[in-house]
Amino acid sequence: MTHAIGSRRWAIADGYIPSSSASDDPALVSHESACVLNTGDTPAKVEITLFFSREPAGPFRFTVAARRTVHLRFNDLDDPEPVPRDTPYASLIEADTPVVVQQTRLDSRQPSHALLSTIAYCQD
Amino acid sequence: MTHAIGSRRWAIADGYIPSSSASDDPALVSHESACVLNTGDTPAKVEITLFFSREPAGPFRFTVAARRTVHLRFNDLDDPEPVPRDTPYASLIEADTPVVVQQTRLDSRQPSHALLSTIAYCQD
Amino acid sequence: MTHAIGSRRWAIADGYIPSSSASDDPALVSHESACVLNTGDTPAKVEITLFFSREPAGPFRFTVAARRTVHLRFNDLDDPEPVPRDTPYASLIEADTPVVVQQTRLDSRQPSHALLSTIAYCQD
Amino acid sequence: MTHAIGSRRWAIADGYIPSSSASDDPALVSHESACVLNTGDTPAKVEITLFFSREPAGPFRFTVAARRTVHLRFNDLDDPEPVPRDTPYASLIEADTPVVVQQTRLDSRQPSHALLSTIAYCQD
Repeated sequence: MTHAIGSRRWAIADGYIPSSSASDDPALVSHESACVLNTGDTPAKVEITLFFSREPAGPFRFTVAARRTVHLRFNDLDDPEPVPRDTPYASLIEADTPVVVQQTRLDSRQPSHALLSTIAYCQD
Repeated sequence: MTHAIGSRRWAIADGYIPSSSASDDPALVSHESACVLNTGDTPAKVEITLFFSREPAGPFRFTVAARRTVHLRFNDLDDPEPVPRDTPYASLIEADTPVVVQQTRLDSRQPSHALLSTIAYCQD
Repeated sequence: MTHAIGSRRWAIADGYIPSSSASDDPALVSHESACVLNTGDTPAKVEITLFFSREPAGPFRFTVAARRTVHLRFNDLDDPEPVPRDTPYASLIEADTPVVVQQTRLDSRQPSHALLSTIAYCQD
Repeated sequence: MTHAIGSRRWAIADGYIPSSSASDDPALVSHESACVLNTGDTPAKVEITLFFSREPAGPFRFTVAARRTVHLRFNDLDDPEPVPRDTPYASLIEADTPVVVQQTRLDSRQPSHALLSTIAYCQD
């Protein structure tokens, strides 16, 4: 690997976690993920800030080890606070080394769930 | 925050609001959103122009406060005119300060709704 | 409008039109679209080339008038040849003036249809 | 064609192949694809590296002939090893000539399948 692929600043404008799920299978509960890939040879320290129609929340901190991926569920964030359900939000993801970020939502409010995904927006 | 992330000009080429919905739950009515994130320290004044197979419509104006996100439903636009249903359109989103724009559609014409989403196209 | 937004060369790598549909409502038949937005003041002459596991097909030609959008269904292409169903393909979209391209697929092989969408890849 | 469109390095951060499918129709089995378009006049030699929460796997090698597209199912990879199901992963796709990469997932764990797709992230 010549150099890590990616960017240090990413944004996701459409965040939303439905509060209900037709299934209680953990894999099929309504959830939203920020999938972070670190192809580099050093760990990536990541901070997420959440934006709402009120004051932002965070930073939420985690680390993606060298040459690893973390698929972080926003549902699981709780420090410094949980992510409210049924509430529009957005997120800014900042890392100290280049990473790639993709957002995915699984919405299982109906029996056959729906999916959406997009590579996030980046700008160093 | 060192500087706001984003761009001042965004485009969404595939706009379409189905006129029917299998549910009358407001959260599950067929709709399309432009989710706008303003990470900056000043309000973003936003103008949307809609394109069709006929003359464009707009501008539709709204503001995203500093360090806030607005998930705007195209369904709710009515000034200067409403967005026609079952009609292909596209949109140009222009702001006076950098923002990030993501489009999402919830299509509930069938009982289990479908979702699509993409970060919009930007070019300053 | 100071200048048209977009690029003259776009690519969509995942093309696929399912041959079956659970509905015969034209709006819900399985289809794939290239949505093209021309925000400029001159018409955009567009050429699409299709790629397969065999020789390419095309060019397919159409025009997007100034300040208009065309949501082109690949299903409807027939000159110089139709797009085969159930067959992986990809497309290159070239215009003589900047446009924005977004791909959307509606897959209604099952009773509740699925959607996918992404802004295409561009490079002038 | 003046020059091939695309980039030599691409990344997909959200990889996931569900192990179950409501249908055993090969077209509707849960799967994930990397769709690679080579618009150029020379073959593209492609290498994929997979990232997990453990050591990476690969490289997986294949070729996309000149002016062809390959829609590669991650499900079918088996050399040097298969892709585990129900396991978050990410991928780095490197080619020796410019290509365009788009990811698509068909998730048929429920009777009406869901789709997601995005142009991958690129950086030369």
